[in-house]
Amino acid sequence: MAEHNDPTQAISLDPWFNHYADRASGLSVSEVRALFAVASRPEVVSLAGGMPFVRGLPEGLVNSALETVMKTDGATALQYGSGQGTPRLREQILDVMRLEGIQGSVDDIVVTTGSQQALDLVTKLFINPGDVILAEAPSYVGAIGVFRSYQADIVHVLMDEHGLIPDALREKIRETKALGKNIKFLYTIPNFHNPAGVTLSAERRPEIVQICQEHNILILEDNPYGLLSFDEPVPPALRSYDDDGVIYLGSFSKFLAPGFRVGWALAPHGIREKLVLAAEAAILCPSQFSQMVISEYMDQADWEAQVSTFRDIYRERRDTMNSALNEHLPELSWNVPNGGFYIWVTLPEGLDSKAMLPRAVTELVAYTPGTAFYADGGGRQNIRLSYCYPTPENIKVGIRRLATVVNGELDLLADFAGTGTLTGGPDTGAVSAPPPNLS
Amino acid sequence: MAEHNDPTQAISLDPWFNHYADRASGLSVSEVRALFAVASRPEVVSLAGGMPFVRGLPEGLVNSALETVMKTDGATALQYGSGQGTPRLREQILDVMRLEGIQGSVDDIVVTTGSQQALDLVTKLFINPGDVILAEAPSYVGAIGVFRSYQADIVHVLMDEHGLIPDALREKIRETKALGKNIKFLYTIPNFHNPAGVTLSAERRPEIVQICQEHNILILEDNPYGLLSFDEPVPPALRSYDDDGVIYLGSFSKFLAPGFRVGWALAPHGIREKLVLAAEAAILCPSQFSQMVISEYMDQADWEAQVSTFRDIYRERRDTMNSALNEHLPELSWNVPNGGFYIWVTLPEGLDSKAMLPRAVTELVAYTPGTAFYADGGGRQNIRLSYCYPTPENIKVGIRRLATVVNGELDLLADFAGTGTLTGGPDTGAVSAPPPNLS
Repeated sequence: MAEHNDPTQAISLDPWFNHYADRASGLSVSEVRALFAVASRPEVVSLAGGMPFVRGLPEGLVNSALETVMKTDGATALQYGSGQGTPRLREQILDVMRLEGIQGSVDDIVVTTGSQQALDLVTKLFINPGDVILAEAPSYVGAIGVFRSYQADIVHVLMDEHGLIPDALREKIRETKALGKNIKFLYTIPNFHNPAGVTLSAERRPEIVQICQEHNILILEDNPYGLLSFDEPVPPALRSYDDDGVIYLGSFSKFLAPGFRVGWALAPHGIREKLVLAAEAAILCPSQFSQMVISEYMDQADWEAQVSTFRDIYRERRDTMNSALNEHLPELSWNVPNGGFYIWVTLPEGLDSKAMLPRAVTELVAYTPGTAFYADGGGRQNIRLSYCYPTPENIKVGIRRLATVVNGELDLLADFAGTGTLTGGPDTGAVSAPPPNLS
Repeated sequence: MAEHNDPTQAISLDPWFNHYADRASGLSVSEVRALFAVASRPEVVSLAGGMPFVRGLPEGLVNSALETVMKTDGATALQYGSGQGTPRLREQILDVMRLEGIQGSVDDIVVTTGSQQALDLVTKLFINPGDVILAEAPSYVGAIGVFRSYQADIVHVLMDEHGLIPDALREKIRETKALGKNIKFLYTIPNFHNPAGVTLSAERRPEIVQICQEHNILILEDNPYGLLSFDEPVPPALRSYDDDGVIYLGSFSKFLAPGFRVGWALAPHGIREKLVLAAEAAILCPSQFSQMVISEYMDQADWEAQVSTFRDIYRERRDTMNSALNEHLPELSWNVPNGGFYIWVTLPEGLDSKAMLPRAVTELVAYTPGTAFYADGGGRQNIRLSYCYPTPENIKVGIRRLATVVNGELDLLADFAGTGTLTGGPDTGAVSAPPPNLS
């Protein structure tokens, strides 16, 4: 009955199997997808998804924005719009970016269908098969997915608690160039990194920019979480050090609502021109309706106060998760992030995050295995925990259940001492974009 | 001063010029883009854009749908959703497609950010550089743009007043295969073709499907206008003849509102699986908010009655344009479409649609030159006129102005008799996706 598990057997049922483009081989179903489908059952506490807590929004203000848009300019909202996005929203985006030290022009902003689309368009514009993208180790699973879908060669660069390590970056650039490979850009999440939770230090920022300038490497700065700081504001954006060498990506998904699918790219002018053409080819234009509702919300609401509310909500959840980990899983190690959504956990030697997941789901708790965040098979000893969506009460329940799982695995490991790691099968390296509501 | 017109001079101002992927060369700025920017001034009657007349929608029903969504399930609407789209909307999409004889499963539908995104994803999945896509001559400018952006080789197939010609299709397949080229799919708009206005006859439909089956060529059936018939319903969809060989694209943009950016693909199962992965890589998920509002509208409104209202509006506008052409420009030839948005006009011998456009804009009327709809430099003697958006009164004004332009060109031609055609410069073949609110 081995055929049932043979993936080539399943694939050959598709009569168009031989017709796909080469790049389609980069689109593989995540092995944990089926498990996540189980994990979405209500009795499971999911610490896996990266869903913001939209119930924290003042619903009255969203309704009021909707009403105003329909009353004052409904016909425009329902129509096609410009491929680049509305000038009004682009002005407001400048206000948001100013908080992180960015000066730019409305003309250099492209509104996209979530910042994921900006990732897609930039990759489409720059990556020939085999071109190298440098990315932190670990990196955002959805970025790895889109990079693979254009046949990029993803080279990971080490981070520490201060973010990307400049010397590690220099070394990887040197190694990669020595192999004769073409480095197109550095993809980096400087603030409250997904999944690692760390923030690139203020000191390192100009150094990272300078290294990339020296080697003529474009920087793709992805910053969905920057506003969600728990202590002090984040250091200035990389973009604030270099207008010509950085494409900056932002999003309304994490500090307003992902359901509108509105993000943006701020790009050097020549790149911006091509980005608009690529965006028009991909979707004609972003939703005029979504853009106008967000503009109205930004005008009517005290949106910075609302960001503060979200900071308070997420800070409490981080504290709850951190305390619960201290209480129930002191044998693990993890960082304590100063903002954003994620805690990155290192399991004790010998445990395997992916092999452990089915047992976790059986215990009614879900997490994302670290392997999802590496393009090279790394991350087996890590898990990403999200505190953004579950209530503090559920976070406590979830961590207690996780402790049961981890301790069970450790007992098992002790029983089988000397036989090696508790691994699953070989890592196929299959990473697609994540099920969007789950990572 | 020739440098000012040298495009390589302009491009070299982009410091990242040498970094782009090969496919980025397929993204060129349309030469008529600047003119269209002028044409969007209010004093210009635009017969160029393909914008539906959204003021024909009952605003109360849209407002009611918005209110219900926010009241009953606002937190879900504002959240990330599934990459494939909501099950509820996919069920309703099945109802829409049933009107054209399509039986399918909700599991084989992918909701996309307008059907343009479905075009993008299908092309990304199937096209290696140099692969051939067969497409009608002329074809949709936005499709040509996205096909080029993946370096497809677009091969045009002749149409007549009954749509794509089966023998022409056979011949092009034979020729293309003889050149050793790889045909990936046939892209076709069977109903109220954009820009040609014609509908593929009922008799030819099974024949076209059979030809593609014989040659193992996938069909990409793009049907945004099928519901907007003025006389009798359109013949059964190509998809109704072949579940395994046709990817069918539909859209809410033309019979509801483009501002929500919601379209869909119905695909053979194996392809659908890959389409969802490609969609997740590109945007994570389509707007949950847009989908839920449309679902609510479809449930609350008598949407089929609303489609009838749109049919009446567009039929009157087609009649107005047809009469005005008969009155003011009897020397031209054109088709009289039985639905959709467009009349395809052939100019008298010696006139050039692209060269004539600046004069038209000076006379405060805009159209789309036929060259936009060919990948091979064709269409100089054609223009596409849209009757969907301007009021009947403005259509009359626009056609009167167009007559002034055409007659002026004909006078000029008579003065210069014997010196050839009134052409502009050489056609560079540059076609990007259109400025979305203008074509």
